[in-house]
Amino acid sequence: MDIATIVGMILGSFLILWSIAMGGLDKLMIFWNLPSVLIVIGGAIASVMVAYPLKAILMSLKYGMISVSHDEYSPQAAIEQIVSLAETARREGLLALENRMEEITDPFLAGGIRMAVDGMSPEVVEAIMNTEIDAVNGRHNYGRSVIANYGKYAPAFGMIGTLIGLVLMLADLDPETIGSGMAVALLTTLYGAVASNLFLLPMADKMGFVNDFEMQVMEITLKGVVSIQAGENPRVVKQKLMTYIAPADRPAEEEEGA
Amino acid sequence: MDIATIVGMILGSFLILWSIAMGGLDKLMIFWNLPSVLIVIGGAIASVMVAYPLKAILMSLKYGMISVSHDEYSPQAAIEQIVSLAETARREGLLALENRMEEITDPFLAGGIRMAVDGMSPEVVEAIMNTEIDAVNGRHNYGRSVIANYGKYAPAFGMIGTLIGLVLMLADLDPETIGSGMAVALLTTLYGAVASNLFLLPMADKMGFVNDFEMQVMEITLKGVVSIQAGENPRVVKQKLMTYIAPADRPAEEEEGA
Amino acid sequence: MDIATIVGMILGSFLILWSIAMGGLDKLMIFWNLPSVLIVIGGAIASVMVAYPLKAILMSLKYGMISVSHDEYSPQAAIEQIVSLAETARREGLLALENRMEEITDPFLAGGIRMAVDGMSPEVVEAIMNTEIDAVNGRHNYGRSVIANYGKYAPAFGMIGTLIGLVLMLADLDPETIGSGMAVALLTTLYGAVASNLFLLPMADKMGFVNDFEMQVMEITLKGVVSIQAGENPRVVKQKLMTYIAPADRPAEEEEGA
Amino acid sequence: MDIATIVGMILGSFLILWSIAMGGLDKLMIFWNLPSVLIVIGGAIASVMVAYPLKAILMSLKYGMISVSHDEYSPQAAIEQIVSLAETARREGLLALENRMEEITDPFLAGGIRMAVDGMSPEVVEAIMNTEIDAVNGRHNYGRSVIANYGKYAPAFGMIGTLIGLVLMLADLDPETIGSGMAVALLTTLYGAVASNLFLLPMADKMGFVNDFEMQVMEITLKGVVSIQAGENPRVVKQKLMTYIAPADRPAEEEEGA
Amino acid sequence: MDIATIVGMILGSFLILWSIAMGGLDKLMIFWNLPSVLIVIGGAIASVMVAYPLKAILMSLKYGMISVSHDEYSPQAAIEQIVSLAETARREGLLALENRMEEITDPFLAGGIRMAVDGMSPEVVEAIMNTEIDAVNGRHNYGRSVIANYGKYAPAFGMIGTLIGLVLMLADLDPETIGSGMAVALLTTLYGAVASNLFLLPMADKMGFVNDFEMQVMEITLKGVVSIQAGENPRVVKQKLMTYIAPADRPAEEEEGA
Repeated sequence: MDIATIVGMILGSFLILWSIAMGGLDKLMIFWNLPSVLIVIGGAIASVMVAYPLKAILMSLKYGMISVSHDEYSPQAAIEQIVSLAETARREGLLALENRMEEITDPFLAGGIRMAVDGMSPEVVEAIMNTEIDAVNGRHNYGRSVIANYGKYAPAFGMIGTLIGLVLMLADLDPETIGSGMAVALLTTLYGAVASNLFLLPMADKMGFVNDFEMQVMEITLKGVVSIQAGENPRVVKQKLMTYIAPADRPAEEEEGA
Repeated sequence: MDIATIVGMILGSFLILWSIAMGGLDKLMIFWNLPSVLIVIGGAIASVMVAYPLKAILMSLKYGMISVSHDEYSPQAAIEQIVSLAETARREGLLALENRMEEITDPFLAGGIRMAVDGMSPEVVEAIMNTEIDAVNGRHNYGRSVIANYGKYAPAFGMIGTLIGLVLMLADLDPETIGSGMAVALLTTLYGAVASNLFLLPMADKMGFVNDFEMQVMEITLKGVVSIQAGENPRVVKQKLMTYIAPADRPAEEEEGA
Repeated sequence: MDIATIVGMILGSFLILWSIAMGGLDKLMIFWNLPSVLIVIGGAIASVMVAYPLKAILMSLKYGMISVSHDEYSPQAAIEQIVSLAETARREGLLALENRMEEITDPFLAGGIRMAVDGMSPEVVEAIMNTEIDAVNGRHNYGRSVIANYGKYAPAFGMIGTLIGLVLMLADLDPETIGSGMAVALLTTLYGAVASNLFLLPMADKMGFVNDFEMQVMEITLKGVVSIQAGENPRVVKQKLMTYIAPADRPAEEEEGA
Repeated sequence: MDIATIVGMILGSFLILWSIAMGGLDKLMIFWNLPSVLIVIGGAIASVMVAYPLKAILMSLKYGMISVSHDEYSPQAAIEQIVSLAETARREGLLALENRMEEITDPFLAGGIRMAVDGMSPEVVEAIMNTEIDAVNGRHNYGRSVIANYGKYAPAFGMIGTLIGLVLMLADLDPETIGSGMAVALLTTLYGAVASNLFLLPMADKMGFVNDFEMQVMEITLKGVVSIQAGENPRVVKQKLMTYIAPADRPAEEEEGA
Repeated sequence: MDIATIVGMILGSFLILWSIAMGGLDKLMIFWNLPSVLIVIGGAIASVMVAYPLKAILMSLKYGMISVSHDEYSPQAAIEQIVSLAETARREGLLALENRMEEITDPFLAGGIRMAVDGMSPEVVEAIMNTEIDAVNGRHNYGRSVIANYGKYAPAFGMIGTLIGLVLMLADLDPETIGSGMAVALLTTLYGAVASNLFLLPMADKMGFVNDFEMQVMEITLKGVVSIQAGENPRVVKQKLMTYIAPADRPAEEEEGA
């Protein structure tokens, strides 16, 4: 998935630079203005700082990374592992899962199995896992709202920068420099529009899709742990969990089994 | 249905070209600018790539096709076939439907009848068919959101292209070329507005209507399979399913039967 | 009700024409431009065609008419007729309503009474009437969304027309004609704004109010038919149905009866 | 409450006039243009007439008045009166309330007590009072939507007026009058912005708060009448009704009683 | 938390001033215009006064302060104190909590414990505490809407100020002063944009987060008081309340205990 995000950013940036450079490579320098960059990016950060606690600002970069680098943990793989654990539990008892703890890499699944092995009551296990799901969902939505707010305030500061540039230019109207003055003034609006439309808003959308995906895997994991603890038939466990997956994405053998 | 979508696109495009060509056919060339086309379309694709996985981008064209080419599978035809199957099931038993499997062209209905014939429990059949309905609905909404996002980012890149053109023009202010410079700069805004308002946003709306329609047919099919499996009287099955259809769309005989 | 809609359209149009003609009647001709009219109206129709099936386009005019010409069928009159039918049913039995079928002009009430007389079960009568209410509501909302979409795309094509005009003017910059060129270019924006704000969007709102009103009358009719079929006391029927009407709109005697 | 609304309108108007008059009192005349006033106000009225029945237009002024002149009927006073009535009812029976009817000024409470004294069943009393609450709520929201629509269409006609002015000015471009022409053209946009942002939209918000407040008092009154009819202990009635009031607004003695 | 809000405001203001002062410190004076400040701030206050009662206006400053200075009362500390109280209640009985009243600083917890000690029924305690939670939530949302409305009307008056400035400048077109006239006119738009995007809207968002946080602590406190009154095992109380806290924020020992 990450490939598309990175490729999209590079493609969009390249298109913008290419359309500028068409009239000559020297034109590119016209579009670089450090103060304009600082007021758009710095201003957006300032506004987000007013709205969020310091911790959220410091984690912005991490939040942004989620949109480009989530791991390809598939629901099918999760189901397979859960069914395999269900078989062990059915054959050798719940406590036999103790020996398979090391092979479970997903900490959410590992935590659920651990609680089951430790003999906690099914209601408590389900409640604790649900709280964890809600907490992960809350954290993801929070991170997404931070990025979406950068995307909302960047164009606002783009406009603020342009207004400042226009006032400076108009207050000291000089026919010689009016053109270049307005050109510089417009740069902040351009920066704000690109930052928001090519990077920040699509990244926030991507974070939403990544969250939807992880929520589904966690939901499957929760149902799986509950089924294992209830000692359900592995075949039934598989059938139940497979309903979470669109038929088109199901492996071939499953359809025969249905 | 598809006729209106295609006719609308052609009519709108023709009106725009005609209003340009009114002042002379040579004016049309003023409105063609390849870099402007590339930045609007390429930029919108780039932003959608940042937000969606690669697969969604590759399927964009297919998604778009849905809005112009969905098949005219009518709810009335679906009800008729289901009632006919219900009669066979009632007269000769559920297993007799085995012989009628080939005449069922709708894979969703075929799958439901197959499960009923195979003796799966009614609850499981209903659950699996509901999962399928949700999955189709989810896929359709996902595809629609891709097209709607193209419609959102195309005007944004139209504005970005115009800003780039204005900065280039203003940085090198030449009274001779100021007019044609601004004309070219405005073209991207024009392209973005046409792409979004004549093509992308209405197509996304159309995909929503197509989905509503298919969801209704699937809902009817689900209720029909459940009724057949329960061995209900074909007359009752028909009466039940007909309530899904607006009275104005019902065939004449049904009203008498009511 | 229709009077206000027509008067509003005439008043608004007159105000616009008057404000133009203030500087001389000859000014009015400046504001007439056939290509501009065609691109705004034709463009809006084209976009709506892309989103809706052909049938919806052909019925646009009929949909629009609803906003200016719905009949003044009052809830009070409906209640009176239902109570009178309830008295007949109570005194002479349900079948006696057969003789009063001709005096019922509302097809929805007539259909309900017909089903009751035919001896259909109360649950089926209620279900069929509810389906009919949903269908009418769905049709009205669909028609309203068509008009609202015209109101959404008209200003978009107003802007597209203005952009085309600006590009044409700028590409061939002539100090002599720059003013009249821009004047013509702005006309499409003006047309789009008037079409949307004076006609289309308020008409869509009006259709919503007309629908709310009809839904209320249908709701009253449904409850009335159910009460008649249950053989309820006409006084109780009246009291029940009157709760749907705001006290201020209730006839005087009712308040005494309460 | 009304004081703030009136003071706000005067303060805002004064600020606008003062900022104009700073450059000389004669500048004020530049900002007065009768045709501009007529197109903004008349146009907004015309659009609202298209959407609403004539009665709503005629009552606009009355609706507007609600936002500046609602009476200060407090929930605490309502609770006190209800508790006092509950004491009488408990001591001397429901019928004894007959003698206290004249002292009840709130018609909603009076109507409820009258129905209780007349011996109507509690369910019917509650149903009738609930219908009345819904009707008042509906009327208020309806009135608010009328004012909010004026606030939506006033800026639209401000823009329409400015477009007309620009077209007139551009069609007859005269360097001498271009400035004053554009100044007049911009006035309608200014009028629309002030009418909407200083008067209409805040008034619509205010009507919402007034409605929230009255709904709360009516809710308390309904619960009170139900409690009185049920012959509940006046102390319990008070405790129940007080939970509707924020602790900070409760009289001191109540907190001790809790 | 407050640090980020203050730092953000200072950072944003500094960036804006720095980008102005880059061309010379004397440029800063161009951006100061008292009438412009008064029309933007005064106008926003006037519009908010029209919509809200006087009390809300007078408390605006207090509302604003909430966004920068809420106390760091942590859920963990609340849980610890509740568990400690639960231990006392379990060991020595509910009445023993009487002696620990002074050490409870949170008035909401103190009120709940006081009601439990006074022997009020659990249902009444829960109802009263829930009313209090709703009231605090309502007050916070009300305060937030006041600040958000300032943020909505400030840019509107920025535009109104700019329109006034443009009309004044255009009515008296003088090539010498046109530049500085437009510069001053644009200042109100700039002020409105900065006030809204750097201060008011992010502050309103912050108030929402602060409210979410306090609601969570109050919810935990309510559940804690209910558990204490029910005489639950302190370990169970702790386990229950800890589910409200994200695992990452839980103290280390808790995880072992789970």
